[in-house]
Amino acid sequence: MEKEEYILGSPFECESGEIIENLKITYHISRHESSSVIWICHALTANSDPSEWWPELVGNGKPIDTGKYTVVCANMLCSPYGSSGPLTGPSYLGFPKITIRDMVKAEILLKRHLGIKSIDILIGGSIGGFQVLEWAIMDPDSIRHAVLIACGARVTPWATAYNEAQRMAIEADPTFFKQKDAGSGKEGLKAARAIALISYRSYKGYNSTQHEDDENALFARKACSYERHQGKKLSDRFDAYSYWYLTHAVDSHNAGRDRGGIQKALNGIRAECTVIGIDTDNLFPTEEQKAMARHIPNAGYRELHSDFGHDGFLLEYEQLIRILEERTFLRPAAHKHAAQNGIQIINH
Amino acid sequence: MEKEEYILGSPFECESGEIIENLKITYHISRHESSSVIWICHALTANSDPSEWWPELVGNGKPIDTGKYTVVCANMLCSPYGSSGPLTGPSYLGFPKITIRDMVKAEILLKRHLGIKSIDILIGGSIGGFQVLEWAIMDPDSIRHAVLIACGARVTPWATAYNEAQRMAIEADPTFFKQKDAGSGKEGLKAARAIALISYRSYKGYNSTQHEDDENALFARKACSYERHQGKKLSDRFDAYSYWYLTHAVDSHNAGRDRGGIQKALNGIRAECTVIGIDTDNLFPTEEQKAMARHIPNAGYRELHSDFGHDGFLLEYEQLIRILEERTFLRPAAHKHAAQNGIQIINH
Repeated sequence: MEKEEYILGSPFECESGEIIENLKITYHISRHESSSVIWICHALTANSDPSEWWPELVGNGKPIDTGKYTVVCANMLCSPYGSSGPLTGPSYLGFPKITIRDMVKAEILLKRHLGIKSIDILIGGSIGGFQVLEWAIMDPDSIRHAVLIACGARVTPWATAYNEAQRMAIEADPTFFKQKDAGSGKEGLKAARAIALISYRSYKGYNSTQHEDDENALFARKACSYERHQGKKLSDRFDAYSYWYLTHAVDSHNAGRDRGGIQKALNGIRAECTVIGIDTDNLFPTEEQKAMARHIPNAGYRELHSDFGHDGFLLEYEQLIRILEERTFLRPAAHKHAAQNGIQIINH
Repeated sequence: MEKEEYILGSPFECESGEIIENLKITYHISRHESSSVIWICHALTANSDPSEWWPELVGNGKPIDTGKYTVVCANMLCSPYGSSGPLTGPSYLGFPKITIRDMVKAEILLKRHLGIKSIDILIGGSIGGFQVLEWAIMDPDSIRHAVLIACGARVTPWATAYNEAQRMAIEADPTFFKQKDAGSGKEGLKAARAIALISYRSYKGYNSTQHEDDENALFARKACSYERHQGKKLSDRFDAYSYWYLTHAVDSHNAGRDRGGIQKALNGIRAECTVIGIDTDNLFPTEEQKAMARHIPNAGYRELHSDFGHDGFLLEYEQLIRILEERTFLRPAAHKHAAQNGIQIINH
């Protein structure tokens, strides 16, 4: 996939009415003339190169075959990986608070710029799934098959509570308000990530991977090191401002807003949809995906089994591939049949 | 109940080997000669007056009848409600990191000071339950009936992850390290409480009580206000140092430490035990209480049904009273029988 940039010549109006000038979208693309088009929406702290964070699914010779299909992934607004956000400008906390619909609006502009008429498979998990849902509603005739993973039709108070606790942690670091550079607010960001991680994982996952080895230690330490390690790891590659804005974008998610409610909005979707839940997802429990599948006219619900909660959509790739094979054109029917029967497929 | 203080004349040696001089324990007591003794261990941010935070259970004429029984509740070490901790001295981060066993050791000293030979009912939830368990192991001949609610035999990596994320939030507030006064670290404390609250509640609880009223709002706000409100509420009555130390005490909990493992430790308990889980408890799921009940020689397991997760032990008092009536002497047998059959009991 090639990394490219698109800069919008005209002002971009956000859902809030605020304006972004010179909106920039960084994206990855593999171009194949007359091929099917697969568009991937990435998750909260990922980037526009899905072969990095979904290596089993996306790449040359992989199920989402960049050697065969036109595959596109755009870095979402407010992410620090190349698209417009609080550190481009830089405007810090003066940047408009953007919504999921703003992200999708920018992606639809990019799609037009790329000359793509319709998308054969639109796929995303978590906040990427939010974008898939909004896109299927905002641009119903362009999407053939939408794959929505580990997401819901509207952010829940439960998920918002996690987001707000994270923003409170970021704001407890007073350097965040100094808006000096990308390093501001980093201690808060570390704590925020440590919180988020809990929401992405599960009781069983933590207890199996972070089990305290020393049976006689005075204080548990292993899970502590893990939380700090993950906080540091994110703060080394991300900034507190982008993170703060992205959590607000999550809290904007409501497919029913100004559309007469969620059911009506879902009823208007014309794409064939595959809605995928994860049985241990604490952040967006399967009842949310089941509810979506019930109200979308042409939708099938499938479930991933995982010990790793919400993060399962990044980890349980074998199950995910099997579902994509069953529900989309990604592999020939003969192979589909074999896979369903648990027969090993040998790729030549 | 009267509020009293006990100051230990000799140095108090912590499990870590560190020494606390002039150890002070603040406690509440109702004295009744030759009466049964009920000892209550309070939870993380509560105090030694259970009639304040368990008003339906404890008080004059209540099931735990302070007008009839000798009822004692000691403020645990490192809590800011009157016992020794980082703000008494004040020593701030120079105070020893105490463990659950240190808390219980102090309580056993208080018990001796009060001339109490044996405790008829020892009861506590969450970190209070940790103390009940340790006490039943450390002082096996003194406890007749132990009631352990919403706790486990050892802190899990899952619970420790929550604690560490909270400590990271506190430490993201640099005033915490300045150790100036009880107001230091308060922004961090607010974020920590906002995180903790999520662990105490449930998906269903948040979604039912914090539902966003404005269907067309651009950003969810209700759960945000709630998180901030609860953070502020705690920071108005608590300090970041006590909180930080108490979360470490939680992370010290391991009934098996230096006792040849958990099963062996639980096997040595001689008290009759009632272990109570809450069906929606995310922090200490019922499998932990069931495991305890399995390994304690004379234990019964009971379950509270709640939409409110871990906090259910403070909210589902009617169910809790029914269990106490069934399992202990707290009400006469005739009433017990009626309660079990769902017959309303009229108290004269």
